[in-house]
Amino acid sequence: MIADGQQHANEAAVTFVNKFTVHASPDEFERIFLDTAEFLGKQPGFLRYTLLKHIDDQNSYMNIADWRDIESFRRALSQPGFTPHAEALRAVSTSEPNLYTFRQSFTSDSGVPPTRATPAKSYRP
Amino acid sequence: MIADGQQHANEAAVTFVNKFTVHASPDEFERIFLDTAEFLGKQPGFLRYTLLKHIDDQNSYMNIADWRDIESFRRALSQPGFTPHAEALRAVSTSEPNLYTFRQSFTSDSGVPPTRATPAKSYRP
Repeated sequence: MIADGQQHANEAAVTFVNKFTVHASPDEFERIFLDTAEFLGKQPGFLRYTLLKHIDDQNSYMNIADWRDIESFRRALSQPGFTPHAEALRAVSTSEPNLYTFRQSFTSDSGVPPTRATPAKSYRP
Repeated sequence: MIADGQQHANEAAVTFVNKFTVHASPDEFERIFLDTAEFLGKQPGFLRYTLLKHIDDQNSYMNIADWRDIESFRRALSQPGFTPHAEALRAVSTSEPNLYTFRQSFTSDSGVPPTRATPAKSYRP
């Protein structure tokens, strides 16, 4: 499990973090998000995503998605098939998207010190 | 890998997402963060963390940490040994902490539909 976790973390050159504020029903948002994720999950370079819901705010969500490289991520979002998903999400929510690179990771069952990104992945757009 | 990913996602009842704005050198912040993570990594209920750095803003970081339950998370932060770490982080950064619960997850090599949280984990503090 540890090896997997570290491999996952290190192979993800870019992590897309998107905070959603939902103005429809949370169930409707989650259904639309699942459809979107199924589309993105088929695109080259997609690694994984997790959708989280704020504990105190039923209308606040966070999507954390790992991609192998930024080019794959941008290519996926520029696919014509993505447009209806993006429109459906915009119809029920506003979002604050940001892109990050990996710096450190540690999984509890590893028994080894945290992993550090070396050298720093310093992507410049 | 898929099974691990799904197990990880589902066993994490709570995900702590903390956005840091750093006003010291990024290297100094990362060193302090690593010390803090080493302390938290030894606490019961800690599952894993990832520290990410914003692609366009050298002073912006995101910590994403999974905990088995919210009680473990709060107990860890109330340990006397955590205080110097919290003070060291506050000396070099400001933070925006939030707590989330798991809703959906999907890993690209699974070949199966996304995992959904059922029933919804609706923790109320």
